Order: sequence, then structure tokens, then C-alpha cells
Amino acid sequence: MKKQPQKLNLKGKKITVIGGGLIGASWASLFLTQGMNVAISDPKPDIQEYFYGKLDSNIADLKKLGYKIDPNYKSHLSFETDTATAVKGADYIQENGPENAAFKQDLWQLIEANAPEHALFLSSSSGITVSQQATKMKNPSRLLIGHPFNPPHLIPLVEILIGKETADSQKLIDAAMDFYHSLGKVPVLLHKETPGFVANRLQAAIFRECVSLVSAGVVNVKELDDIMTASLGIRWAVGGPFVSFHLGGGDGGFPFFLHHLGPGMEGIWKDEISKPVSYDEKTTQLLDQQVKEHYGNKTIAQLSEERDEYQIALMNTFSKMK
Amino acid sequence: MKKQPQKLNLKGKKITVIGGGLIGASWASLFLTQGMNVAISDPKPDIQEYFYGKLDSNIADLKKLGYKIDPNYKSHLSFETDTATAVKGADYIQENGPENAAFKQDLWQLIEANAPEHALFLSSSSGITVSQQATKMKNPSRLLIGHPFNPPHLIPLVEILIGKETADSQKLIDAAMDFYHSLGKVPVLLHKETPGFVANRLQAAIFRECVSLVSAGVVNVKELDDIMTASLGIRWAVGGPFVSFHLGGGDGGFPFFLHHLGPGMEGIWKDEISKPVSYDEKTTQLLDQQVKEHYGNKTIAQLSEERDEYQIALMNTFSKMK
Repeated sequence: MKKQPQKLNLKGKKITVIGGGLIGASWASLFLTQGMNVAISDPKPDIQEYFYGKLDSNIADLKKLGYKIDPNYKSHLSFETDTATAVKGADYIQENGPENAAFKQDLWQLIEANAPEHALFLSSSSGITVSQQATKMKNPSRLLIGHPFNPPHLIPLVEILIGKETADSQKLIDAAMDFYHSLGKVPVLLHKETPGFVANRLQAAIFRECVSLVSAGVVNVKELDDIMTASLGIRWAVGGPFVSFHLGGGDGGFPFFLHHLGPGMEGIWKDEISKPVSYDEKTTQLLDQQVKEHYGNKTIAQLSEERDEYQIALMNTFSKMK
Repeated sequence: MKKQPQKLNLKGKKITVIGGGLIGASWASLFLTQGMNVAISDPKPDIQEYFYGKLDSNIADLKKLGYKIDPNYKSHLSFETDTATAVKGADYIQENGPENAAFKQDLWQLIEANAPEHALFLSSSSGITVSQQATKMKNPSRLLIGHPFNPPHLIPLVEILIGKETADSQKLIDAAMDFYHSLGKVPVLLHKETPGFVANRLQAAIFRECVSLVSAGVVNVKELDDIMTASLGIRWAVGGPFVSFHLGGGDGGFPFFLHHLGPGMEGIWKDEISKPVSYDEKTTQLLDQQVKEHYGNKTIAQLSEERDEYQIALMNTFSKMK
């Protein structure tokens, strides 16, 4: 029986954020909304300047999403380049270092030697599994993946993975689920390690076909994006593919869908995977040129701002309905 | 230079809806919002009972979406089993007959012989191309596909396809684009015929990986749906895959994304397409059983109502922002 995640009071708890870049700054902003004491550990000399440049807009987003934030939140923030010092007294550690297995192995060894016994070790890695990261740890089962979807302060999903299964695993999983749930996130435990985890694998699968259709000249990148937002996107914002097909089958539900539309879909699968797709030079040029042609009239900053405005409005609409 | 679609005044125009089932009834409800005269042509003896059973809830949905509807809308509705009679005087014909090429070939031959010269011929088919449907027509270039995404009265996308390109094609495309645009839809012209068109191909591509991940035990169907709604779904409701990656690349935009994340994605593609996926008996049983386990506590009607409520709220939120 799966335990329902519980809301923890995180006020005054210490979290060390390893790496204060885009992901780390986004996580840190979210942690500050709970009154946590956030220590940023990053060796880059200009880290504070970069970090504060992101912080204000992240906090503004979070306020729009309804998070209540202590006006003195900046006083709960500290910077410490030395990792061993940064993890002293930490209750949680969220790691966002370079995606390099050797780096992470040394890092966790150092953290394990200096952090308290009870601290929860969480890695944001999107690709380096727990087993690969924990090779130098005395107790490798202490480490979990808590992989966010970019940007972590906005998008609810956190994919949770463990490495070696031990007697303590369920306790650690529950602690991680409770932690992310308390931050307003949607943590989902993956039961097996797989390259790319789940969300990025789904994204890769559909994007292969996007690239294939654009390369074949069926639609351009803008037309494909319009098709997505006008159909599947708004559908999957409301319900995932399985429940959507369950309801698409009418009164017969999912079994009806599978029986009647399954064979046709298998035919499309064969056609799709038989077509070679790669980011060769020709494809790269075509995609770059089309993205520039159709989206180049606005800056990345303008487009991002528009996106986030719609994103936040959507999330607020749904959270009011729950 | 692509023409911007124009709003037409459809009031008093006649449209013949061939087939009054789920899709036909949904289309008809939408047409009624514009004050069109809607003739339903369907040989089924209980068609009126079925049709009126759907109409009220469709009209209720459309009102929630902000469509203004003449209270006497039912007086604009007629039923005519004989197709030749039903298409007399029609300005538009939207065909939703069985997905059977031979049936559609005879149908369009009959329609062409009886409908006015100016009438626009539109097929809702999701798989039988214009070329396949128009074999018995004197002027095959008169026929277009206007393929909706279910249910047509709610979901904005209409995929437009033509068959043989002729001197008149652009005029016909413009007329179809204007027509669907006037109904509040998002029509997108596909430049080439491809099995499944675009939205269903994208759906098939991602669903192959969904089935693969559930079969491998990485997540169950409910966990996969939760991952979708908590990440990619809400993303793609706001912007399609190309603009999402353009913004995911930070200041470097799409070229940066492609350069840095492209190779990793190619690796996932190889892994994904190397794994066989089919709706064999074992897979079918597993999926049916999991859908029943995780969604079986509510009826299809309850789940559909919840879905549509969220769907409509999302669409209203976005349309207010535009």
C-alpha cells in the first residue's frame, strides 16, 4: 500500500544546494518559500551576481503561483564555496553539479563524510543514475535522484529514483516524497532505472517524430507547434495518454480503444520507426533555420516571459479547481 | 505569403452533416452556434434519439466556452436520410461516414452530382486520404480533408489536407481555413499526405514509448499519466516542442539545445526504437488491467465530465489572455 505523501514543516530546516546555476537557483528560490535556510555551494567567483540575477524573477513567479514568502527571505540565504563546510548541519542536500560521473562520485564521498547522519541526499541529475554516482559512498543507499523538470520552481514534476534497494529504502523514498510534496511539487517514483528516466524519454520519442515530419516537409516547426498546443498539449495538461484513450474509447473505455484503434496505431509505429531520423548537418540546418524564421522576431526573454505567464495562469486555474 | 484566415458570417448558410454519430453530433453542435442551418443525413433509424442525447451536453460545453447560441437553435436542425436530398442547397458538407474507402468513393460521387457548384466538400476522415476518397469524382480537387481532434466541438485543431493540386486549390484551402477559423477552430494545412496525418502520428509516437515503459515496469499507467500532466502536458499546452526547446536552450536558443542535448537525445532514440513494442496479448492484458485498477473507481461519464471541466477552464483562461 502506497503511503500518501505528507506535508512537512520545513521552516528553519537547512538545505545545501550544490551548484547555483540555472537549476540550483530555481530550486533555491522554491526552498526559500518554505522558510528554509538555504546554503549555496558553488566555486564560481561570480556566483552571487548570477544567482541574485535569477532570484528576483523566480520569486516573482512563485508569488504569482500563490506561494507566501517571508519578506526577509534573503536573510535565509548564504554562500559557501567549500562543500565540506556547506553541508555541515544540513537536513537536506540538493545536488546540481556538472553531469559528470567522476565529479559526482567524489562529491558524494565528501558530502557523506561531512553531512549529518540524518541528512537526505538528493541529486537533480537527469542521466547519471544513483548506482553510477554512489560508487565511493560507504552507504550508497542513502542517495536518491530527485530529478526536476526545467524550471524546477515552476514545473511540478520531480522524478524520484533509488539505487541499490535496502531495508531503509522505503523510509528514504517516503522522506523524499514528503519533502517534494511539501514544496508543492508532484513527486513520482520510478521503479526501475532507464536512460533518460520517463519524462525525457517521452519527450525524445515524440520529438523524433516531430523532426521526421518537419524534415519530410509535412509541416514546418511553427505549424507543428500549433498542432500540439491546439490538440494534444491541452489534452495532456488535463489527463495523460492512458486516461485520455480510456475516455476516447467511449463507453467501452480503454479495452475498446485498444481493440479498435490499436492495429492502426501499430501500423503507424512501423512507419515511424522505419524512417531514419538523426541530427545530421542537413537536419540541424533545416531546424535551426525554421526556428529562426518562425520565432526569431521575438527575443528568448520575451518568449519565455509570455510562456511563463500562460504557464502560471494555467496552473492557477487548475489549483483553484482542486 | 500565407493569407490570414478571415471571419465569415455563417448565419443562414446550410451545412449538411453526413453521419450523426459522436463526431457528427459534435460538429453539428458547433455549426449551430453560428446560426447555420444544419441537415443531418444518417440512415440509422434511432439517429434522432442518439443525436439529441448528445446535443444538450455539447451545447452546454459550448456555452461555457463563451459561444453565444440562439435559444431557438433546434429549429435550425433537420434530419434527412436520403443523401441526395440532404445535400441540395448546401453551402458546406462535413462528412463523418464509416472509415471505408469504397463507401466514401460512392458517397462523394453522389454528393457531387447533387450538391450546388459552390458547396465546399469536407471529410472528417482520420486516415483515408483525399486521393483515395475522390476516385469517382468528376473534379477530385473539390474535396478536402478537415480532420478534427475528438471531440470536435471542444478541441481547436482541424488538420486540412488537399488531394491533387490544381489551379483552384489555394482558393479551396482558403475557403476551408476561413470556415474553420470562423467556428473558433485552429485549422492547420498539412503540405503532404502521410498515414495518420500529424496529431495522430505524434500521439502514436509518444504512446509507443508509454506502452514500452509500462511494459518494462518503470512506471504504471497512472504514474505515467501523472508524469505527463505534471510536466510535458502543461508545457505543450502553452508552447509546442520546438518553441519549448528554443526556450529550454537559454540565451543560445534552439541551436544551443540541439548542439548540447541533441546527441543525448539521439542515444535515447536508438534505445527506444530498438525495443519491440506491440499490442500482443500480454501487453493488452497488462494495460487493460492497470487502467481498470487505477481509473476503474469512476465511470467513464464521471471522468469525462471532470476532464471537460478542466479542459474548458484551461481554454477560457487562455482565450481571456489573448
